[in-house]
Amino acid sequence: MTTKPKATKAQLAEQFRTFIDPDYVITDDETLKPYECDGLAMYREMPMLVVLPETVDQVQRVMRICHENDVPVVARGAGTGLCAGAMPHKEGVVLSLAKFDRIINIDPIGRTARLQPGVRNLAISEEAAQYGLYYGPDPSSQIACTIGGNVAENSGGVHCLKYGLTVHNILSVEMVTADGELINIGSDGLDSCGMDLLALITGSEGLLGVVTEVKVKLLPTPEVAQVIMAGFDSVEKGGDAVGGIISHGIIPGGLEMMDGHAIVAADDFAQAGYPRDAKALLLCEVDGTEEEVHEHIAEAEEVFRKLGATSIRTSQSEEERALLWKGRKSAFPAVGRISPDYYCMDGTIPRRYLAHVLLEMEKMSDEFGLRVANVFHAGDGNLHPLILFDANVPGEFETTEAFGSKILELCVEVGGCITGEHGVGVEKIRQMAVQFNDEELQQFHDVKAAFDPTGMLNPGKGVPTLKFCQEYRSIEHKQHKHEQTDGAHG
Amino acid sequence: MTTKPKATKAQLAEQFRTFIDPDYVITDDETLKPYECDGLAMYREMPMLVVLPETVDQVQRVMRICHENDVPVVARGAGTGLCAGAMPHKEGVVLSLAKFDRIINIDPIGRTARLQPGVRNLAISEEAAQYGLYYGPDPSSQIACTIGGNVAENSGGVHCLKYGLTVHNILSVEMVTADGELINIGSDGLDSCGMDLLALITGSEGLLGVVTEVKVKLLPTPEVAQVIMAGFDSVEKGGDAVGGIISHGIIPGGLEMMDGHAIVAADDFAQAGYPRDAKALLLCEVDGTEEEVHEHIAEAEEVFRKLGATSIRTSQSEEERALLWKGRKSAFPAVGRISPDYYCMDGTIPRRYLAHVLLEMEKMSDEFGLRVANVFHAGDGNLHPLILFDANVPGEFETTEAFGSKILELCVEVGGCITGEHGVGVEKIRQMAVQFNDEELQQFHDVKAAFDPTGMLNPGKGVPTLKFCQEYRSIEHKQHKHEQTDGAHG
Repeated sequence: MTTKPKATKAQLAEQFRTFIDPDYVITDDETLKPYECDGLAMYREMPMLVVLPETVDQVQRVMRICHENDVPVVARGAGTGLCAGAMPHKEGVVLSLAKFDRIINIDPIGRTARLQPGVRNLAISEEAAQYGLYYGPDPSSQIACTIGGNVAENSGGVHCLKYGLTVHNILSVEMVTADGELINIGSDGLDSCGMDLLALITGSEGLLGVVTEVKVKLLPTPEVAQVIMAGFDSVEKGGDAVGGIISHGIIPGGLEMMDGHAIVAADDFAQAGYPRDAKALLLCEVDGTEEEVHEHIAEAEEVFRKLGATSIRTSQSEEERALLWKGRKSAFPAVGRISPDYYCMDGTIPRRYLAHVLLEMEKMSDEFGLRVANVFHAGDGNLHPLILFDANVPGEFETTEAFGSKILELCVEVGGCITGEHGVGVEKIRQMAVQFNDEELQQFHDVKAAFDPTGMLNPGKGVPTLKFCQEYRSIEHKQHKHEQTDGAHG
Repeated sequence: MTTKPKATKAQLAEQFRTFIDPDYVITDDETLKPYECDGLAMYREMPMLVVLPETVDQVQRVMRICHENDVPVVARGAGTGLCAGAMPHKEGVVLSLAKFDRIINIDPIGRTARLQPGVRNLAISEEAAQYGLYYGPDPSSQIACTIGGNVAENSGGVHCLKYGLTVHNILSVEMVTADGELINIGSDGLDSCGMDLLALITGSEGLLGVVTEVKVKLLPTPEVAQVIMAGFDSVEKGGDAVGGIISHGIIPGGLEMMDGHAIVAADDFAQAGYPRDAKALLLCEVDGTEEEVHEHIAEAEEVFRKLGATSIRTSQSEEERALLWKGRKSAFPAVGRISPDYYCMDGTIPRRYLAHVLLEMEKMSDEFGLRVANVFHAGDGNLHPLILFDANVPGEFETTEAFGSKILELCVEVGGCITGEHGVGVEKIRQMAVQFNDEELQQFHDVKAAFDPTGMLNPGKGVPTLKFCQEYRSIEHKQHKHEQTDGAHG
């Protein structure tokens, strides 16, 4: 968005206050401050103003006013995102959906829930529990994050290997377009006629419209769940065991991996009884009917044994299951205790390269002089390397960023991609130039323009300009010429 | 596309023949004739010319030439489609993908197959069988239809209730854009970074690009499958039993329904031992492991009994299973024997309205004076009413079309949609005006323009112009004023 806004802050606020409760049109710095960043706090920008509408009609009016005045709009859920996708624009409006927090209805027969976008992820499952149902995708931030934000970033979680990402668990959305029109996308069926825009909207990071309602699918709560904890004395063996489970035909409810650093940190924190000398730990949860779980647990134990597990422990009660998961669930704060700061990366690779990528990361860790701990969704190849650093050491954040970039480029090299479930936002906009060629990026720009011709929605996020990409690639290319000695995974 | 093509037929043919085997640049009427229509033969148009390239580079060159010369392009697979989506444009080129018939590779560990778009649907499963794998979606035309056509129409089949439509079973596509660029869409992972265009391309009916490669997921062949045939003495009971099975938590591999007309016709043809006096027949197939199938078959029988089945028969051998399916699979040709012509409709409704819609169709059948037989994917609410008519009786085809329109509008009325798995094409372009409002259709046009700004790809299909819609709605509205007496499902 290059055009200069046509209205001043005061003029906009005045217009908004004619139809939104004036207390929810925020203009003073002190109240604006909490909106300065999202969960990726190193990227910050103060917005011009923040509005919290509470009806769809109000959202439409906000959009029309911003559209007429060439004012950027950044939609915001709970602000827990990890790619700075909700970072404000300094000349723009933050449109918070916080007041859209109503579960409109739950249909226990059709197994669906109609939700306003500000409903918290966990609140859906809590409300559905009375019918023996739950909502599948469970990002780590599920206590706080909203379904609208989940749609914007196509969020995943531990269960997405078996139950899919957000895109696989929603049926339809209602959306306000850049110019304030209201459209419905998707249907209750497997298919809907017309163009299938639902997947396009899911994960579009606020670049295409503002979602004002979401209809999700609910799943029956599994009868039984058991978790196997398996320790290995090398990351290669741990990585192979992940592939072993899947190629054996078992799709676990969750299949998580932790490396040595993470195991010790998590065990110190949660006292989960993890094998502290293991170099890789797998948590493999199987859910389903009694017989299914019984059979798959036995088979999975057998696979782990054959592939060299040095320890195997299977939960025999709900308490034990909760304990084994407790370490994993507290792994991020646990790592936070062993380092002043950490940077959580997100990338995806084909499962067969797990061991290769983990070993390469160890080498990079030596090169960059920064520790890295790995806690991640191994089953779907979704890595979450945590780079440990100290923001108070001059230059260390920059080194961390460079390390992070290399990790993402390694993901692309082995045929993976630069994000799993956190999105691109501001954080990974450079790596988009590595992942996609100009024709592909141009196609994204054309699609963006089909929804938002003036570029008012979340400008500067998600899709880089071609000019930027060409510059970034030429810098990268020069570096590579010096650095690369082998092209095995080119 | 309103611009007059800049090149003559002879000039275009000459250009194409510089890089495509001249035999496969077809210009004479006799050889063009077979391309005049697809599976919906009442819509016909002779193309200007047909080309059959055999490399991606040739496809790109064809597109560039057509783009420069403002010549419409209609991509074509096997021509088995049922919505006239592959009907030629009289001033355009038909781009046949028939020579792209190679299975590039099958990865039995990753359970994927890389395919050229002209590979036949059934050929995928035949090739994958050696690894104990198969490809899920199985349209009735699977012997002949191609994976490229399946992607274009987002095809389904008997198994899509459990295993999903084409969109749920593909990982990525390679596509040539309107101006001849080559782009890749999708990835091997659950998610891919950048905009998720894969679902948009799937079902886009050749309006957005020409797919030149498809990577699909393969499924492990189930250990066991058994089918229950259940007869009911009313369509209400049959419809309720469909809902009963699903809400009991069983997702059958297939859940098909036939009404009285179809039962008798199919049994006459296949001698499958169907209960000829039943008013509704369900075929419910359960697949999976031995234990799972055993348990679910017993439960499903119990559900059917409780909901008033007048006869229940469960296959005890592979032969018996094949026999019970034989009637269903030959139902269309069987109906062809009891009527000079039939028109196969395709619409989708929420399962709970099955009985209501079937009864309404019976009333319409009396009104229009035409018989209707129903054979359909009941489990996912995907109706296939066959309207029986005689094309030699003057006016009867027009009456059939009007009856068909009413059926589709009834689908929309109860919250369903105007297509299940056959697409919009030319056939249902009017009903798009009933299904979508102007803002939604405008959004489709904008997305179309993002891929094809000049409108050269399959013009006149899929998405109607807004002007057309306004006219159609105003005619419909006038009729409705006279006709409608109750608005219960408005």
